[in-house]
Amino acid sequence: MTTQPILLAGEWQPGTPAGEFRAVNPATGEAIGPAFPRSGMDDIERAVLAASGIADELAATSPDVIADFLDRYAAGIEAAKDALAEAAHAETALPKTPRLADVELPRTTGQLRQAADAVRGYAWTHPVIDTKAGLRAHFAPLHKPVLVFGPNNFPFAFNAVAGSDFASAIAARNPVIAKAHPSHPRTSQLLAQLAHSAALDAGLPAATVQLLYDFDSALGLKLAGDARIGAIGFTGSRSGGLALKAAADAAGIPIHAEMSSVNPVFVLPGALRERGDALAQDYFASSTMGSGQFCTNPGIVMAPVGADGDAFVTNAAAKFDAAQPLVLFSQGVQQHLANGVNALRAAGANVVAGKADAAGPGSRYAPTLLSVDAKQFIANAQALQEECFGPVSLLVRYADADEAVAIARAFGGNLTGALFTATGGSDDADAARIATALRPRVGRLIENKWPTGVAVSAAMQHGGPYPSTSHPGFTSVGMPASIHRYAMLQSYDNVRDDRLPPELRNANPGGVQRLIDGEWTARDL
Amino acid sequence: MTTQPILLAGEWQPGTPAGEFRAVNPATGEAIGPAFPRSGMDDIERAVLAASGIADELAATSPDVIADFLDRYAAGIEAAKDALAEAAHAETALPKTPRLADVELPRTTGQLRQAADAVRGYAWTHPVIDTKAGLRAHFAPLHKPVLVFGPNNFPFAFNAVAGSDFASAIAARNPVIAKAHPSHPRTSQLLAQLAHSAALDAGLPAATVQLLYDFDSALGLKLAGDARIGAIGFTGSRSGGLALKAAADAAGIPIHAEMSSVNPVFVLPGALRERGDALAQDYFASSTMGSGQFCTNPGIVMAPVGADGDAFVTNAAAKFDAAQPLVLFSQGVQQHLANGVNALRAAGANVVAGKADAAGPGSRYAPTLLSVDAKQFIANAQALQEECFGPVSLLVRYADADEAVAIARAFGGNLTGALFTATGGSDDADAARIATALRPRVGRLIENKWPTGVAVSAAMQHGGPYPSTSHPGFTSVGMPASIHRYAMLQSYDNVRDDRLPPELRNANPGGVQRLIDGEWTARDL
Repeated sequence: MTTQPILLAGEWQPGTPAGEFRAVNPATGEAIGPAFPRSGMDDIERAVLAASGIADELAATSPDVIADFLDRYAAGIEAAKDALAEAAHAETALPKTPRLADVELPRTTGQLRQAADAVRGYAWTHPVIDTKAGLRAHFAPLHKPVLVFGPNNFPFAFNAVAGSDFASAIAARNPVIAKAHPSHPRTSQLLAQLAHSAALDAGLPAATVQLLYDFDSALGLKLAGDARIGAIGFTGSRSGGLALKAAADAAGIPIHAEMSSVNPVFVLPGALRERGDALAQDYFASSTMGSGQFCTNPGIVMAPVGADGDAFVTNAAAKFDAAQPLVLFSQGVQQHLANGVNALRAAGANVVAGKADAAGPGSRYAPTLLSVDAKQFIANAQALQEECFGPVSLLVRYADADEAVAIARAFGGNLTGALFTATGGSDDADAARIATALRPRVGRLIENKWPTGVAVSAAMQHGGPYPSTSHPGFTSVGMPASIHRYAMLQSYDNVRDDRLPPELRNANPGGVQRLIDGEWTARDL
Repeated sequence: MTTQPILLAGEWQPGTPAGEFRAVNPATGEAIGPAFPRSGMDDIERAVLAASGIADELAATSPDVIADFLDRYAAGIEAAKDALAEAAHAETALPKTPRLADVELPRTTGQLRQAADAVRGYAWTHPVIDTKAGLRAHFAPLHKPVLVFGPNNFPFAFNAVAGSDFASAIAARNPVIAKAHPSHPRTSQLLAQLAHSAALDAGLPAATVQLLYDFDSALGLKLAGDARIGAIGFTGSRSGGLALKAAADAAGIPIHAEMSSVNPVFVLPGALRERGDALAQDYFASSTMGSGQFCTNPGIVMAPVGADGDAFVTNAAAKFDAAQPLVLFSQGVQQHLANGVNALRAAGANVVAGKADAAGPGSRYAPTLLSVDAKQFIANAQALQEECFGPVSLLVRYADADEAVAIARAFGGNLTGALFTATGGSDDADAARIATALRPRVGRLIENKWPTGVAVSAAMQHGGPYPSTSHPGFTSVGMPASIHRYAMLQSYDNVRDDRLPPELRNANPGGVQRLIDGEWTARDL
């Protein structure tokens, strides 16, 4: 049995594999599909050479061609919806509908099309003109490949060859070296086939996209520190992200790593009095959606002590207890989750719901609820805020607003933080204090909504302070801001009009919003 | 003799010095002024505690108060112009006029006022509203101190308590821990006195600004890796910058380091034929202004072989030869420069003008011109593009456009790159090829202008690819972009209007330009 080809230097080719692997159906534990190659240094070196070799050509490509590629690719994904949902379902056990076919796939194509719009309208280039100083500035391509590491939990929307990192890197006219997640190689292959076809149809350089299915982490670190790489996008575990970040930092390569988050949620007494039952139901749903394998999963929920809080906990615990074990992405995820729960228990948390020993084939884990009191959480905050990736949530019971504020202050950087408050306003004063403490610790502050939905919007911040990500000034979701991660700021000083890029010339290329002498305008100069 | 007080925790106080030092007049080599303390870990720890302690209060301060502080401080600097110019002249040997009093001081106050404008108009917060998704995003304070390391070469405009890092950090409502450059402690003290008075007058927290005159580099590395620091600004040597960057990176602290640049300049044959004499004169002037101690000094200049190129070189060499030795900032700078010139010679460059042994007291160096041929430069590009900080420039003689392009490709990241071309257009084809090669390697691309002027403009990019700076997406000069270095991106999801920051509420706080559903507008919602 020969292994599957990799997408390298503009064609699907065997490469020189250093090993092979097969996908596993996590619902059954059985290996499925063909053997995929694990790449060695030869393939990686060829990917870097091929991508570097066309970086200048891609940077010089017309935005219309880039946008056309993104649109064609989106259409191709839609046309292949059934096959993609089938493959992703087999490799991830996520439901074909609604999740894969009706939610994640449209989100992925919508994201590609939003990138196309940002490219056509030059929005991501943020053109600034100072007529008096003779200076013009914009964001521009890196002229180097972007290396993208895809995570396990979004086989489409964060896939290394289809997700936001990919769309952002290509929108900024940079070639991509995609390292797929090895838990869904067939899905990644299908997407890369569509991407490659769309690239050829649109007239992009053939080596615009490279796909490697997997390689050893030591090789990954070597590649992350290779000065020929322009920037790196990573979504995954904290340990993996920190290792890549260290390698990239040492070589002066910008890395945008999203590395775990517990997404604190504060449920205030007034909200519980008003709608405690609904909140318990939604808490369970948000914790178990996608088997809890979301970066914005409500990992730690603060509930008040007292009767309303007790009822909320009892109510939620009943739902967790009644639930069947959920299928996780892999044995590795399951093992990591089991270790995480044990660590929380060792740090003082008590299991209040969930059957530790899940029955059934494949990789499963029963939805599990733990609890700890506020003093213990604050005293042991570091250990108790380690992410448990899966359908597990930790309750922290607080006595009053002072204690809730102290808890909020004990959190490190997170992607999101949420508050549930009374509609009538009875919680307002306390909510304001808690929000003030929480605000600098989270990228997205949410009111009266669970954190698991992440809209692809220009006003999204899917990012946050370290260690949730590597830099608090960037978002990995939302056009055009996410494109800035893979761009450089360039200015032109006293440069003749016809030598400027189109969006910086006197004549507006057509409806482009530019900051001219302090005013946003679409006029010509 | 007691040492001078430091500005710590809201007052001028003795601290617990770990040592002391005096400034040196670099024109005479004599120690001048009082003894200043070298801080130990006690003072540093107190600075971190004091700044951290008021970070939330400062973040919650009204933008009007911040802007008022910046304006008051600018006015204070203007009122103290004579004393400041006197002190800076004594400590740096830069001319009082025009440089210090008439150029750098107005630039510094202008920068503070531009920061005030960006604060008042909320321009730096970049408000984005998505009404459909219920999301609103903006840039916001870090809620942690910004640590600023000032360089030796701009005692006002890049001073750790007055320059762009300072203005940017304060504009984003972050406290500052300023580490002055030890070559101009009295100037820094005067500025810090003005800053502190203005802060108290404006009603800012007393501990908004801390000033430490110096501390050991080991303590600096410890501080740079302290997770209580929100971000770091550094302008200085590559070795110093890289060491701080490693410490900050390991702790997940964003660092914005500007770390040396040779600013390649390509002089094309048509430009030489047209105005060779003027170019030689301006080359000399740009290389020796401020004794050549500029981060945008034309350190490497490409001139064609042949008669016009020879005449240009001879002409420039005569000016370099005729010049008196220039005073440098310190013995350290002089020694570093002498080592740098020796390294260039060891790498194959020949001295074509300049007296290596400068006479005169203090720290002096004769303007020096070196030359190397293109093949040698390309073969030894790494060694030959080490920055020589001072009035030293290296000529690279190229045969034709192909060779000029090959040279351009041999450059690492730089702040600027420039081309001189014929006005008539005879060089256009060659210029386009060279510019294409140079563009991704420099932050600011310049035409027919020497690189030493850096306008404070919204369209400036005073930054560039690694290793000229630590991140190609940021500028250290130019409001409002430079403020983003010290800000975090925050979004609000489903948050009630009255709980939003002013610039994200439905009612526009007054003329603020906001991106609402894809359109820049100053309207209310």
